[in-house]
Amino acid sequence: MTYPSDPNRPEFAFGARARQSPYFERARSAGACMYTLYNHMVMPVSYGQPGAEYDRLMNHASVWDVAAERQVQLKGPDAQKLAQMMSPRDVAKCKTGQGFYTPILNKAGGVVNDPILLKLEDDLLWLSIADSDVRLYAMGLADAYDLDVEVSEPDASPLAVQGPKAEDVIAHAFGEHVRDIRYFWFIQTELQGIPVVLQRSGWSKQGGFEIYLRDGSRGAELWDIIWAAGEEIVGEPWGPGAPNAIERIESGLFSWGTDFDEQNNPYECGLGKWCKLDGEHDFLAKAALIRIQEEGAREALVGLQLNAGEPLPSVTKPMPITDASGAVIGTLRASVWSPRLNKNIGLGRIASAESGLGNTLKADLGSGVVEATVVGVPFA
Amino acid sequence: MTYPSDPNRPEFAFGARARQSPYFERARSAGACMYTLYNHMVMPVSYGQPGAEYDRLMNHASVWDVAAERQVQLKGPDAQKLAQMMSPRDVAKCKTGQGFYTPILNKAGGVVNDPILLKLEDDLLWLSIADSDVRLYAMGLADAYDLDVEVSEPDASPLAVQGPKAEDVIAHAFGEHVRDIRYFWFIQTELQGIPVVLQRSGWSKQGGFEIYLRDGSRGAELWDIIWAAGEEIVGEPWGPGAPNAIERIESGLFSWGTDFDEQNNPYECGLGKWCKLDGEHDFLAKAALIRIQEEGAREALVGLQLNAGEPLPSVTKPMPITDASGAVIGTLRASVWSPRLNKNIGLGRIASAESGLGNTLKADLGSGVVEATVVGVPFA
Repeated sequence: MTYPSDPNRPEFAFGARARQSPYFERARSAGACMYTLYNHMVMPVSYGQPGAEYDRLMNHASVWDVAAERQVQLKGPDAQKLAQMMSPRDVAKCKTGQGFYTPILNKAGGVVNDPILLKLEDDLLWLSIADSDVRLYAMGLADAYDLDVEVSEPDASPLAVQGPKAEDVIAHAFGEHVRDIRYFWFIQTELQGIPVVLQRSGWSKQGGFEIYLRDGSRGAELWDIIWAAGEEIVGEPWGPGAPNAIERIESGLFSWGTDFDEQNNPYECGLGKWCKLDGEHDFLAKAALIRIQEEGAREALVGLQLNAGEPLPSVTKPMPITDASGAVIGTLRASVWSPRLNKNIGLGRIASAESGLGNTLKADLGSGVVEATVVGVPFA
Repeated sequence: MTYPSDPNRPEFAFGARARQSPYFERARSAGACMYTLYNHMVMPVSYGQPGAEYDRLMNHASVWDVAAERQVQLKGPDAQKLAQMMSPRDVAKCKTGQGFYTPILNKAGGVVNDPILLKLEDDLLWLSIADSDVRLYAMGLADAYDLDVEVSEPDASPLAVQGPKAEDVIAHAFGEHVRDIRYFWFIQTELQGIPVVLQRSGWSKQGGFEIYLRDGSRGAELWDIIWAAGEEIVGEPWGPGAPNAIERIESGLFSWGTDFDEQNNPYECGLGKWCKLDGEHDFLAKAALIRIQEEGAREALVGLQLNAGEPLPSVTKPMPITDASGAVIGTLRASVWSPRLNKNIGLGRIASAESGLGNTLKADLGSGVVEATVVGVPFA
């Protein structure tokens, strides 16, 4: 047994509760050296090469073990009915083979999660989720309403290829026809006999695909095929990556659990545009959303330019944001030094009244207080 | 920014999604150097002194940051009704000031969690939970049945004192009256003005208390008071600890998420004794449990003595258990070298037919295959 003894570089604890992904051994061999738990599963977040990882994503392509983006499967005659109860979008309009990004709302209008809904069949839906057990909310509804639907976690583990050359990598592996797949649409197919769902998707704004492996015993095989395709198409810059804190903040990609959660309604976290209150479809949160719209949202999720002359360390927990009078009016949720913009930037959840572009606030980063200006996202 | 580069000693990733406990800074100062996420919260699991941590727990007392043991609060006229839907125990029999260990079951009889239910008032219950968002299951039921109950997470963060001298430490801090508190019962009180719930409880079989801090801003204060009491009563051996993998296996303390989960019914994980099918109370899983009892449980959670001459490394993921013919009949969920027994021991989930005491199986630990004998728990 080896135990570390450096509290400044704490070790990640393994064990059966921290489920390992089908790609775990391959990711480790590729140098994964920092992990988090996400949906109860071990997820690599760094390969120890922050500069190269960012460069791959922005200029080339990289492969990500995102099996921790679990699926909630709704299967049975009432699958769509159950999905519709939780979604403010008109689920009936989602076609077979299509994905819908949708907030999942409880009756009070709180955002329980913000998955992509995939319609595999009329009676077979997946929710490709952020880090909360939305399966349990769905199960509570199904049990109480006595719906004819099975709520479960299928054997489906996403491997992402992200970056401007991701499409070329995927086309090399799967064939040229994948270039026709539209954003969030997907095909059910095989890759050298391995059953997968291939979707144009992924947790960056640099373009790419997610390959949902449908046989967890074949993760290494799939990784190896994609790795070989990447080496062939991208060459030397090809390599591993992970959901990237810098890119996602630059791109204004909000993260459930980090930036907002169930305490927020959709209007407080940029999700209002997905809430159709005048459609023919009904959903549990509808009455709450109508009320919230009338009252107005209390908070807003905004981009913040952090004015400091040098790169600041990223915050590791929510830090207070204050107005000119010194009153706390929100929290800084995440911050990074942006190499592209040569600036410190972050995302904050602040009082709506303070969220106007150009408004100047102060953020306490722990290491010091800096001026924070509200700016539009994506950051430019 | 510092990045580690050793995949064999991977670093734990911090960020706003990984919520820090009210005791986080104190635990870090005390040397916490290995973490997990539990209920979306950072939880220390090692202070880099495995021998001393085990010794403190077995022979003295130690203080644990277990704020990650979150609470689900059910508040309102229908609080007990909602709790009863999910619990196979007769919730009405739980008195104010009492705690009930209870499985939380979905309608199919799957174990969604196994919390301690605390009855603070007739219309105010807490579920002190293991690592799943049982709040969302409760919320799904409440939303669908339109119950008059608020399901939320209160500001309540447990700090545990565990070990044979824990009662002395707590009595020193709170007063001698705490010695009268019965197992799982609790009092609502203050400690030097800090509002807490004090319960005889904790995730070990060595005795102790959990102090539910009810004001998250006062974690360091509470830690310091308890630390001082510990130093005074226990003296030199006093120090920090965490839920202990060795002790909990020796004691046969099963862990939701590690040893069993929602795929299991209560009869498969030693929870059958809490399922009252002939009581006056009704609950959602009742029909399923009656059926499962008739059919018999498929699996059993058992103690395993792992026969090897020397200490084996602990498994970090479920490993296959095979019968004499080589067929896989279950998985080893956790294993440790027991200093008390001078043996390698573990917990396995195996086919019921193979679960008789003394049955000899084989366990593949990755590093090698060893003989595994089914034995009773607690291990003796």
